[in-house]
Amino acid sequence: MKVIYTDKQAEFQFLDEMNRRAGEVNFSVSESVLGILKDVSMKGDKAVREYGEKFDGACPASFEISKDEMKKAYDAADERFRNALIHAKENITRYHEQQVQKGYELKKENGVILGQIIRGLNRVGIYVPGGTAAYPSTVLMNAIPAKIAGVEEIIMVTPPLVEKDDTGNLTCRANPDILAAACLAGVDRVFLSGGAQAVAALTYGTESFPRVDKIVGPGNIYVATAKKLLFGQVDIDMIAGPSEILILADETANPRYLAADLMSQAEHDPLSSAVLLTRSEAIAKNTLNEIELQLKGLDRKDVIRQSLENCSAIMVCSGMEEMLELADLIAPEHLELMVKDPMDYVNKIKNAGSVFCGDYSPEPLGDYLAGTNHVLPTSGTARFSSPLGVYSFVKKMSYTCYTRDALAQDKDDIITIAEKEGLGAHANSVKVRFE
Amino acid sequence: MKVIYTDKQAEFQFLDEMNRRAGEVNFSVSESVLGILKDVSMKGDKAVREYGEKFDGACPASFEISKDEMKKAYDAADERFRNALIHAKENITRYHEQQVQKGYELKKENGVILGQIIRGLNRVGIYVPGGTAAYPSTVLMNAIPAKIAGVEEIIMVTPPLVEKDDTGNLTCRANPDILAAACLAGVDRVFLSGGAQAVAALTYGTESFPRVDKIVGPGNIYVATAKKLLFGQVDIDMIAGPSEILILADETANPRYLAADLMSQAEHDPLSSAVLLTRSEAIAKNTLNEIELQLKGLDRKDVIRQSLENCSAIMVCSGMEEMLELADLIAPEHLELMVKDPMDYVNKIKNAGSVFCGDYSPEPLGDYLAGTNHVLPTSGTARFSSPLGVYSFVKKMSYTCYTRDALAQDKDDIITIAEKEGLGAHANSVKVRFE
Repeated sequence: MKVIYTDKQAEFQFLDEMNRRAGEVNFSVSESVLGILKDVSMKGDKAVREYGEKFDGACPASFEISKDEMKKAYDAADERFRNALIHAKENITRYHEQQVQKGYELKKENGVILGQIIRGLNRVGIYVPGGTAAYPSTVLMNAIPAKIAGVEEIIMVTPPLVEKDDTGNLTCRANPDILAAACLAGVDRVFLSGGAQAVAALTYGTESFPRVDKIVGPGNIYVATAKKLLFGQVDIDMIAGPSEILILADETANPRYLAADLMSQAEHDPLSSAVLLTRSEAIAKNTLNEIELQLKGLDRKDVIRQSLENCSAIMVCSGMEEMLELADLIAPEHLELMVKDPMDYVNKIKNAGSVFCGDYSPEPLGDYLAGTNHVLPTSGTARFSSPLGVYSFVKKMSYTCYTRDALAQDKDDIITIAEKEGLGAHANSVKVRFE
Repeated sequence: MKVIYTDKQAEFQFLDEMNRRAGEVNFSVSESVLGILKDVSMKGDKAVREYGEKFDGACPASFEISKDEMKKAYDAADERFRNALIHAKENITRYHEQQVQKGYELKKENGVILGQIIRGLNRVGIYVPGGTAAYPSTVLMNAIPAKIAGVEEIIMVTPPLVEKDDTGNLTCRANPDILAAACLAGVDRVFLSGGAQAVAALTYGTESFPRVDKIVGPGNIYVATAKKLLFGQVDIDMIAGPSEILILADETANPRYLAADLMSQAEHDPLSSAVLLTRSEAIAKNTLNEIELQLKGLDRKDVIRQSLENCSAIMVCSGMEEMLELADLIAPEHLELMVKDPMDYVNKIKNAGSVFCGDYSPEPLGDYLAGTNHVLPTSGTARFSSPLGVYSFVKKMSYTCYTRDALAQDKDDIITIAEKEGLGAHANSVKVRFE
């Protein structure tokens, strides 16, 4: 792991490398994804099936998993796990219910009524990856806010687990943990399909797949590219990059916790980023030692080592001011304040997805249980985007009702601007009402 | 203009044609835009200048317009026009101030604190097209909500008006009406540059152009494609399609007003769409007659004729129920309720950008003066997106602060889920705190 000692130039070079990871366009992936999208838009289920067989090795006879199967998976889940999910659901619900927003209506003295109505989206699709990145917690984090927003129907798609049965035939089934979480979170329908073809099926609708209004959830580069290309025909959440943690630590921080928390993000992916800013050389050294000590006991030590080498660093800074400045430049997904009186600094952080304060708020607490959302802006996009929330699943509509007198008062100004903009028919629509 | 008489099949065929207009990917445009983006990211101002000279014919010596020039344009503006803009600004401000949202904090019994902070974006770019689509009203509609949201710096880019001076040299200047509106709306800096190169300059930052967090505003296919390709490195508003109006009219509607309002949208662009749904054949016929009568007096009659032929129709429906159903399928940008007691129906409209109620709320009222935003979802995207608003210019950040006791209560559930997901370092970060 790289250690940078109060060296502005090295700091900025590191930041520059980090920033380059964001949202680049991959033209060759775009081209192959575009082919898949076209096929699905023209051939529907048939194309979804063909690509499923090609990429997953097999495709189920019927894409949809019954409600019964979801319930069975939930009932069959290990009780400890089920209770943990129930606890998580309670906390996520309580935090997100605060985000429910109502419309408003302005009634003016002259009889004019203006207003805004806020409604849940009609139908939302949640993409849940298969393989090692199949996270039941992500199902909760996506579905619960959608449910609270009043979304009428939540559709989940997830690639099949393909296995050989006793006779050597390939069979397809859903990950049971994902199904259990979907059942608890109130997902309405589940389809066994993944990749760009599943995203296309949800966008266009096919014989089997209903068309949705928004697609959320993480996925590989093909899924992400499909979402990006289809944005406009369907709404999407952000394109998620590798996970990140940034820790700001003063002399009071415990290097054992710092090491553990850095590695908790580093284990996601060899491209994950874990950065520690501190003004104490001792903290830097002791954290490095602690990483080596704890690493031995961790299953994903190879991934952790890679991401600590690739995109991670410890930077020894001149003081808190410099640390806050760097934090805003990095705009991390997760930020831990391991300092004395951490709550005093929350308001000073401008750009971050989620902030964790003090010794007893390790970042994985937010991944699972605290109640805040774990779908957060990555790759510096916290500059302009927000955690997933109830607000991600609503749409707004404005309305206007004028009286004759009110329009008479405003008509000259409307005509003046319309004519200045060269839009005579706009002016005419007001004029005809007073001729 | 096409008239469809209670013919479900013809209705759906028409809707299908309409829907195809949405968000298709144009690969050859993407390829040339990608070249421009790469050049600007590598060569900065030099590339912006070269593309400006190539596409606009000339490029100003210095991109930035001084604050003084903005103020001069404002002072020199025609008084009637300036007062109309001031009136518009007041109404837009009053409507949008209702959208200001505060964060929240939950303090739980066990000492846990969870919260959300809402902040204005740091820096926003507004793209304002040149030529005939240079609308001062659009400057107000984009800048005022950003200002209310607390955006620290608003940057406007707009292509130069290129003219020959007396000696035959090419000179560049800004559209004075746009400058006047920018001054009134509180735009901080204005740059004379347009096209994909201006969008790239705002995304990456160059020697002259500051890097922004979000880019909003309409533009041609090159501007729209640049925004779409850069989404993720910078935030964007929606990709706007041609303007649309849908009118629902019962027997009480006045065909003169219907004709005028259909044409007010049709004049924007040969691809604009104007659709009237009514259950009265008499209303349909009289509206067609009124269109012919009024058309003669309108400057943009050629554009209007084209868009009425291309993407517009009058549909005679069986009744209000069918009209509402079709409205939700079309999900129009603008919807006029020209019926008795229009306010009774507002809540029944699921998908629309902005609804205008009754005889004295013609759609152009919303374009300029009522106070609602005129940047609205087009091409059926009202299914999932919202008018531009204060909420378009903020970002949210969550925070969590646990005590030792609170983490002790939750630790087993966190470890259970983490281990189920195969993320041992996540579990470890909790365990080390209690060893």
